[in-house]
Amino acid sequence: MSEQALAAVKSALTSQRIETPSWAYANSGTRFKVFAQPGVPRAPWEKLDDAARVHAHTGVAPVVALHIPWDRVDDYAALAAYAGERGLTLGAVNANVFQEDDYKLGSVTHPDPAVRRKALDHLMECVAIMGATGSRDLKLWFSDGTNYPGQDDIRARQDRLEEALSAVYERLGDDQRLILEYKLFEPAFYATDVPDWGTSYAHCLKLGERAKVCVDTGHHAPGTNIEFIVAFLLREGKLGAFDLNSRFYADDDLMAGAADPFQLFRIMYEVRAGGGLEPDAGIAFMLDQCHNIEPKVPAVIRSVMNVQEATAKALLVDREALAAAQRAGDVLGANGILMDAFQTDVRPLVADVREELGADRDPLAAYAASGWAERIAAERVGGEQAGWGA
Amino acid sequence: MSEQALAAVKSALTSQRIETPSWAYANSGTRFKVFAQPGVPRAPWEKLDDAARVHAHTGVAPVVALHIPWDRVDDYAALAAYAGERGLTLGAVNANVFQEDDYKLGSVTHPDPAVRRKALDHLMECVAIMGATGSRDLKLWFSDGTNYPGQDDIRARQDRLEEALSAVYERLGDDQRLILEYKLFEPAFYATDVPDWGTSYAHCLKLGERAKVCVDTGHHAPGTNIEFIVAFLLREGKLGAFDLNSRFYADDDLMAGAADPFQLFRIMYEVRAGGGLEPDAGIAFMLDQCHNIEPKVPAVIRSVMNVQEATAKALLVDREALAAAQRAGDVLGANGILMDAFQTDVRPLVADVREELGADRDPLAAYAASGWAERIAAERVGGEQAGWGA
Amino acid sequence: MSEQALAAVKSALTSQRIETPSWAYANSGTRFKVFAQPGVPRAPWEKLDDAARVHAHTGVAPVVALHIPWDRVDDYAALAAYAGERGLTLGAVNANVFQEDDYKLGSVTHPDPAVRRKALDHLMECVAIMGATGSRDLKLWFSDGTNYPGQDDIRARQDRLEEALSAVYERLGDDQRLILEYKLFEPAFYATDVPDWGTSYAHCLKLGERAKVCVDTGHHAPGTNIEFIVAFLLREGKLGAFDLNSRFYADDDLMAGAADPFQLFRIMYEVRAGGGLEPDAGIAFMLDQCHNIEPKVPAVIRSVMNVQEATAKALLVDREALAAAQRAGDVLGANGILMDAFQTDVRPLVADVREELGADRDPLAAYAASGWAERIAAERVGGEQAGWGA
Amino acid sequence: MSEQALAAVKSALTSQRIETPSWAYANSGTRFKVFAQPGVPRAPWEKLDDAARVHAHTGVAPVVALHIPWDRVDDYAALAAYAGERGLTLGAVNANVFQEDDYKLGSVTHPDPAVRRKALDHLMECVAIMGATGSRDLKLWFSDGTNYPGQDDIRARQDRLEEALSAVYERLGDDQRLILEYKLFEPAFYATDVPDWGTSYAHCLKLGERAKVCVDTGHHAPGTNIEFIVAFLLREGKLGAFDLNSRFYADDDLMAGAADPFQLFRIMYEVRAGGGLEPDAGIAFMLDQCHNIEPKVPAVIRSVMNVQEATAKALLVDREALAAAQRAGDVLGANGILMDAFQTDVRPLVADVREELGADRDPLAAYAASGWAERIAAERVGGEQAGWGA
Repeated sequence: MSEQALAAVKSALTSQRIETPSWAYANSGTRFKVFAQPGVPRAPWEKLDDAARVHAHTGVAPVVALHIPWDRVDDYAALAAYAGERGLTLGAVNANVFQEDDYKLGSVTHPDPAVRRKALDHLMECVAIMGATGSRDLKLWFSDGTNYPGQDDIRARQDRLEEALSAVYERLGDDQRLILEYKLFEPAFYATDVPDWGTSYAHCLKLGERAKVCVDTGHHAPGTNIEFIVAFLLREGKLGAFDLNSRFYADDDLMAGAADPFQLFRIMYEVRAGGGLEPDAGIAFMLDQCHNIEPKVPAVIRSVMNVQEATAKALLVDREALAAAQRAGDVLGANGILMDAFQTDVRPLVADVREELGADRDPLAAYAASGWAERIAAERVGGEQAGWGA
Repeated sequence: MSEQALAAVKSALTSQRIETPSWAYANSGTRFKVFAQPGVPRAPWEKLDDAARVHAHTGVAPVVALHIPWDRVDDYAALAAYAGERGLTLGAVNANVFQEDDYKLGSVTHPDPAVRRKALDHLMECVAIMGATGSRDLKLWFSDGTNYPGQDDIRARQDRLEEALSAVYERLGDDQRLILEYKLFEPAFYATDVPDWGTSYAHCLKLGERAKVCVDTGHHAPGTNIEFIVAFLLREGKLGAFDLNSRFYADDDLMAGAADPFQLFRIMYEVRAGGGLEPDAGIAFMLDQCHNIEPKVPAVIRSVMNVQEATAKALLVDREALAAAQRAGDVLGANGILMDAFQTDVRPLVADVREELGADRDPLAAYAASGWAERIAAERVGGEQAGWGA
Repeated sequence: MSEQALAAVKSALTSQRIETPSWAYANSGTRFKVFAQPGVPRAPWEKLDDAARVHAHTGVAPVVALHIPWDRVDDYAALAAYAGERGLTLGAVNANVFQEDDYKLGSVTHPDPAVRRKALDHLMECVAIMGATGSRDLKLWFSDGTNYPGQDDIRARQDRLEEALSAVYERLGDDQRLILEYKLFEPAFYATDVPDWGTSYAHCLKLGERAKVCVDTGHHAPGTNIEFIVAFLLREGKLGAFDLNSRFYADDDLMAGAADPFQLFRIMYEVRAGGGLEPDAGIAFMLDQCHNIEPKVPAVIRSVMNVQEATAKALLVDREALAAAQRAGDVLGANGILMDAFQTDVRPLVADVREELGADRDPLAAYAASGWAERIAAERVGGEQAGWGA
Repeated sequence: MSEQALAAVKSALTSQRIETPSWAYANSGTRFKVFAQPGVPRAPWEKLDDAARVHAHTGVAPVVALHIPWDRVDDYAALAAYAGERGLTLGAVNANVFQEDDYKLGSVTHPDPAVRRKALDHLMECVAIMGATGSRDLKLWFSDGTNYPGQDDIRARQDRLEEALSAVYERLGDDQRLILEYKLFEPAFYATDVPDWGTSYAHCLKLGERAKVCVDTGHHAPGTNIEFIVAFLLREGKLGAFDLNSRFYADDDLMAGAADPFQLFRIMYEVRAGGGLEPDAGIAFMLDQCHNIEPKVPAVIRSVMNVQEATAKALLVDREALAAAQRAGDVLGANGILMDAFQTDVRPLVADVREELGADRDPLAAYAASGWAERIAAERVGGEQAGWGA
């Protein structure tokens, strides 16, 4: 690889921005049990403190996504300022219309207009918060759906969804975007109202230019080729964001790159090939994970590193050689060129990038040595630990 | 159920048209073995003879889909006339751009423009055939895809696909439609170029009003909610056709209704709810099955009956009561109303409908008694039996 | 069907015993939210009150499974007596070694021997409870497993599992059984220690005659043929119990028969064919469901009815005709005989059976008319509603 | 890594033996099309010629599996001698009881005893061939199963299977083994008679010491944790062989390591951890792949390299450090130790091993330079190319 090419790779890695979600620092679990961990934040401010550690060690995670109401505060401008003092900015505002009793049968697609109204009000509240936090993106995931055939009218729910999305979209400012996430199932176990990329895409298309699809890597049916979806959406100008995580089975929400690093590499390759790594592409690379049994801050660090390494490998693919092999119909040759990049050990390269960014060559060792884990375990006692329910 | 309501159900069942595919009467199998059967047609004419038996016994299968080149004849008008004499019409023309050596790496998405040209020529030939057969629909399934990551450029293949589809669409007459089928995998084992409904939908949207999606019930990832897709596409005016069959695992191509009769019922319910049973809805209900081990004509009869029975149950759903329960958020009540229809034994009702149509109350018994199976086994000797390769 | 045959069917239906789980009457939910319902029991006694209503209306649900510690009481003999006064008996004792903080990385397979000891103590406590409740079965489901490759030693965990099972098995009385459940995933997201029937079977084989496998119908990988497993285990004398529920995606825990009634019928057919409906077969037919959004008592009633109806259809299969068609290699004929039974509307037959048992022809209507729902909503106020966590 | 440790790794890699299947060199395809390739062997002798090239370039593929009748010759001793002259030995004899018309409804589980007899005769013929070829293993894969519920009696088919297996096992010599493969589906689409490892294991257990399970990496339901099965079978002494290949969807039969290299690594790690790499472990590492669109000899070379590299990474895992982290419950640490090995670029190490074996550092380049592809394309003209049907 030429010096120039290597410099371009490093430059791309240097400018990458990975967004970590505030809730990754909080307690999470399965329906069977939430195992609380020592040192877990008790308020959004402490989540930002943890996120700042992740950024300090990795150099590429300066953005933190919020989740309302989990991160509700009185003064969002103050929260943004607090973030800024730590080298962070506030990212996507994630709405939550699935945890109040009224939402048992849905939120914006609920058969009862009063519930829909309530849900819409919350979405509007989120738009208002974006103004205070300086967030670009309103991220919408609807758990809406049904558990039993016949329970509700599939089509009518689409009508209600369209109506709500349209109302929210109109409220957005010119620099703000609506990001619509899809998910195959859970918590709805029969029909989810936005179950796949096609549904999200179709709605975004109707909404307009600033409505984009979010690809959560754990939200697909088994066997789905996620990188195809990524390539397709990029081609259509409709990819807005990732929720990165990994899964062996369903929406397992494991650390990104932990279950299938080759898949993460293929996804990042399509992102690169489709121009998604360009700074003005507007793709948000967010983690969305649950660290149910592993300590949270180092798990986030590890995930950030995994995404970086997959990106580095994607950048190392020799695109000219690849294109030539593809044109020639050289199946093994083309595959081999892709695999060469994947097989490369990019850890030294990424360490160099980190060093140049003023972060650590070995972020996990640096974190372990920093004493942060011990400190938060000692200091964050009393109060209520943050979790999905609070 | 009121007399009037029952009459409406019968009327809907009487006007239903199920299209059988010419290749269902021919030999088929798996990659491991094609088990030839006695009496299998040796030419399109004989396929029509078999299809005429299916229609005679069931009364609702007067349309036969063709597959080119498997059904290539010198004179398509003569073939249409032959069909007409037997009470049949010719249905969709199914193109085949996957069985020539040139198509090893794709057809319309092949990296080599010469191969793309050849494939496009075949599609244009199919359009020409439609003129002679009086077919409304050009059905396109592309096996195009790749087996290995990196083998070809996912995005470039979409560009090529769009170009080919656009050229074909322009060639169609005002009363003709382009129906684009999707399939998750097989024969491509890494990335298929039209893998899901979203991809087909997006292309059809760009093409125009007369481009519609075909839902093959065996072409989805495990767990996919097919009736959701059906409801969604109907809402968007983009559902054009079904390829009905059933599966336990992948694209098993078993008889429709054989693997999950409840799913078939749910699908037909959404069709009904979305207006898809209306005569002017333009939805083609085609079977697309492989009778690898069971005798073909009775298997098609059985499949037609299964679709009819699922439709009958769908029509029996008390929509007013259902809507009321749905509005009330009565989960068990709404589900129960749907299940009531499913649990009903509709065989007597469908037998009545068949009798009124001049067909048989018990089509399988009538077929067995007709001696047709013995006759074709005795008469169709010599020559080459039709199959996928011929 | 002859009078004699019909009498045999009715007799089999009359003697069927469906076990309902105490936790089905309590609150449950997903990791996203537990929607509490009015009238939910606050103690095991109230769960038995609800179970008694289910039995009163259906006539075939006289057994109630317990879950320890969710159903922990001071005096289990008193609980059994309370059940007896309501026409109920106490069924399987279900152990719980997944909800204490110590179990974050496993229970009987945990790397730390102290945690294993604690888990084993709980299992021994359950055996002791069985003595007081008169329960035959100790049902063991281990959530044990790992979330990340390398997290623990797969093989060593099997060694630990074998050791614990062996110790528990030795503690059982001669009339008591150990029932080992398997589950593909959740809450473990990489490797579960008892992920499939083969693992459970292999352990039960080593343990001895009174160790049996439990088939939870929601615990398999997509596409798994559950009735094959049922037939296989019955042939080997190793099927001990069912946890009945239904799923579209993963372990959705919907009402039995709600997602795929044809599958439930096929399972019950294999049970019948393998002698599993015989009173001395020792197969426990337990429900294991979560009624997250629907009211619990009627949902359990509905599930019981669904199992009954599937059983009735299975009993209606003309086994002699089926065997003859199978011997003759008549694929369509044999399939048709099975389908005939499935297509039959057995609701009147099952209503007759219920009536003869002194229960209600229409259990759901009878329950609605009984005022029970209103009564428990009014009376059960204050205190803490039962759920998975209490 | 110490010199000593590195030497041990190299030694293990040097002694690895990968078995290639004769049919990988022949034409293969899907049910849609077999794309013939230039230079494909026309007889077993030519397959051995190709296999010899693979071994020459890689140094670790000296064994070739046969498939009867595809590799039927008059004189098997001569075939073995021919192999010997090329540095090869003949490996497992793979029986084929799925390609004759009689086997439409099964072979050893067919309802007709005459068909079962015929199938058994073929298995006995294979045992006889093993004597002449010096093969240790009889590999049995049965396509037996049913396509429709009710088609045949699931349990009776197990009885027939058990009878046939028992008869074959008794015929084996003391140094010969019966290897029973399982497969979820295809070509049977409802119930396969040996669908999973549990079924194969249960039969092997009854047969005796020399009956072992074969794990084909493409034969599982989505989400199945294959390395768990490998670890479990090794613990039980019942793992006999692998059929290595890779899949994204079903039994795609792509090159090993092509779809999920991390999974292949995890499998090889469990093999290593369970002692399966020891020379006396008796595990056969066979490829079983279809090179439908890529040239066959280099595809086999690539697959061998992929298996080698995965093995090398598995050998690099620091087991002591891993065990310590596991004991300490250090989730991230333990996972990190495993990932460290996976992230290592082992290509230079494996190239060294190859060089020491007298093979090529870059086998694919060496093959390309050898002119073999051009030579066989030029010389192997006329006659009938080998494929699955011949």
